[in-house]
Amino acid sequence: MAAPLDVETLRADTPGCQVVTHLNNAGSALPPAIVTETVIEHLRREELMGGYEAQEAAADRIEDARASAATLVGGRPDQIALLESATSAWDRALTSIAFTRPLDSGDRILVSSAEYASNVLPLMQLSMRFGARLEFVPDDEHGCIDVEAFTDMLDTDVAIVSVNHCPSQNGLVNDVAGIGAALRETDTWYLVDACQSLGQLPVDAGAIGADFVSATGRKFLRGPRGTGFLYASDEALDELEPFPLDLHSGTWQSGGYDVQRTAARFEYWEKSYAALLGMGAAIDYALDLGVAAIAERIADLADHARDGLRDIPGVQVHDRGLRQSGIVTFTRDGVAPAGLAAGVRAAGVNVSLSTPEYSRRDFDLHQLDGVVRASPHVYNTMEEIDRLLVAVASVRPGG
Amino acid sequence: MAAPLDVETLRADTPGCQVVTHLNNAGSALPPAIVTETVIEHLRREELMGGYEAQEAAADRIEDARASAATLVGGRPDQIALLESATSAWDRALTSIAFTRPLDSGDRILVSSAEYASNVLPLMQLSMRFGARLEFVPDDEHGCIDVEAFTDMLDTDVAIVSVNHCPSQNGLVNDVAGIGAALRETDTWYLVDACQSLGQLPVDAGAIGADFVSATGRKFLRGPRGTGFLYASDEALDELEPFPLDLHSGTWQSGGYDVQRTAARFEYWEKSYAALLGMGAAIDYALDLGVAAIAERIADLADHARDGLRDIPGVQVHDRGLRQSGIVTFTRDGVAPAGLAAGVRAAGVNVSLSTPEYSRRDFDLHQLDGVVRASPHVYNTMEEIDRLLVAVASVRPGG
Repeated sequence: MAAPLDVETLRADTPGCQVVTHLNNAGSALPPAIVTETVIEHLRREELMGGYEAQEAAADRIEDARASAATLVGGRPDQIALLESATSAWDRALTSIAFTRPLDSGDRILVSSAEYASNVLPLMQLSMRFGARLEFVPDDEHGCIDVEAFTDMLDTDVAIVSVNHCPSQNGLVNDVAGIGAALRETDTWYLVDACQSLGQLPVDAGAIGADFVSATGRKFLRGPRGTGFLYASDEALDELEPFPLDLHSGTWQSGGYDVQRTAARFEYWEKSYAALLGMGAAIDYALDLGVAAIAERIADLADHARDGLRDIPGVQVHDRGLRQSGIVTFTRDGVAPAGLAAGVRAAGVNVSLSTPEYSRRDFDLHQLDGVVRASPHVYNTMEEIDRLLVAVASVRPGG
Repeated sequence: MAAPLDVETLRADTPGCQVVTHLNNAGSALPPAIVTETVIEHLRREELMGGYEAQEAAADRIEDARASAATLVGGRPDQIALLESATSAWDRALTSIAFTRPLDSGDRILVSSAEYASNVLPLMQLSMRFGARLEFVPDDEHGCIDVEAFTDMLDTDVAIVSVNHCPSQNGLVNDVAGIGAALRETDTWYLVDACQSLGQLPVDAGAIGADFVSATGRKFLRGPRGTGFLYASDEALDELEPFPLDLHSGTWQSGGYDVQRTAARFEYWEKSYAALLGMGAAIDYALDLGVAAIAERIADLADHARDGLRDIPGVQVHDRGLRQSGIVTFTRDGVAPAGLAAGVRAAGVNVSLSTPEYSRRDFDLHQLDGVVRASPHVYNTMEEIDRLLVAVASVRPGG
């Protein structure tokens, strides 16, 4: 068991704690001060030196951010691409896979039933255009991806598997390592979307057996918006040609081109280095606290929220899974989810609304037309969770 | 003729002018204070309110930035996608074209001979993988894209044409409107890379007849790093399916998906809204000054630089074109370009080095192994240009 965190220090580190009860960390967290200060410090350097000159001066610190991301996800720095979001990271993996060997009607693509729309949509596009079959893996009795059913579905036609580690809208934690074990010795590309897990739960890309792990800065990592990263396995680096290249990921030679050997092959030259340095500071902050300690604290807060919500008459908690994440989802009888979210926010508690477009298959299977999502982080207090409970209880049915 | 700009005010607006002689505006310009302050103001809101909540609160201002970009490029707001760089903008256009109708050996792709590597590389990839023929359009007697030769090359197999308005490494301004006129009534997709022209020269997408115009924030627009935008014609919006979609550009419906009608179909949901608000401030600043006045001032400074450089024994200016941009390129006999750039920078003048990988065809055609690039902006002074000249003259051959 990890040493407990000192909540007062965590709150003192987090300027937003003075202002708001923020239970929207699965949307975009309140950053610790060091994150915003790091971004601003680099913006000031750019303002005074020039943008390229500031980048050169910060070159070592940019590589430090890459190394921190590698430590967090259990990879080497040369396996990390610094990107703009989990979506851009996941898409770079997909466009590289689809460029290296175009998909056709002989290919199958398997995804979890709670998969996020931004992953499913490009796969639907490739499926509809090129005939690859897109299939949803059934859930097990806990509502997670069914590893046994998945294993039974596998054959050599399965080109791509994509699984959300922690789906955005149902509190569960998928057994991504179980899926990875089933894929060992196959030629299938395995994409793990860890955008809701990195920063709140331990994630080890190697142990999972993922070819790609996509991550965002702004959620449980508490980094800036417009940041993310991609872990790529050695097989992915060896076998895939990144597409589209730019003059950072590739080099135009007379009569052809070369491609960077490291995961920088999935990056663009142009990016917000200020924001990426901020992401590096956020990762270092998380590593200093210890991800195990973070996970325990978030679980305590989320459990308190679930217990309290279940005690409110007419409230349903929709979280599934044998193991649960810091994402708490609920509805209340007689109140539209949008109205419930608005009511809670009007009471000064930041929560968010998840609607079927976020994960159509999951919402349709569970006949939900929306859920309110509360997602605590280490800096939240039990009193703030109680404020959520009071706010939920106070929203009038029909309101 | 535009009213002359007040240089003292421009310099007072630009904190970096106190610190550095910055002639690297074609790399990344010194921003006016309003740009950095706008970014920081939004970062502070995110820090105190939460990232999504700050975005909601700034929704109108984000749309204002889109409208400003539309004004600058001569389009409507619904024709503008807010993106991370000119490269990401140009790539979104290309991946959408290639997804909507995959290229094959029956297709031809025409590009200018001074085209930027980040545009040529993905086209080379598509060409090598799918057999489309990538062809360079010859230069005319001024060294610009030869509109007549281009017109002669056209047939119904030409699927894509890409032209850099102002190439990165040779000071010329291509006749993008002439190319556009030749393409009228064709089914060819016409991409104009305006990343070095927007902010320093008037650009009117409609008058050019472009299907796409890609733009970056950080160069002559003086916006933050990690920003850019894409203009899309009505034909592009009508006929192309953006790829890859996310839950912002597309909507997952039961059994299929819808695509946003506006150019937001080329955007990602996740981005640095702080940086984009900064880009909006930069565009407004340029529009307030007047692009015509900016163009005149930059031309005066660049001409002074070219004249002075030509007067230094052993210095060659490599800028071509009937019309020239604010990009001034040169070499000096007996000094490697990298050494010359380093020497000038050591004298406190920010310049940059362009190497053959940036635009292989152009460097090979002109048998250059590198050029030093000086790129003034309105806030520079003739005295700063003179400082450049002294620095260039002072670099010892062999040094």
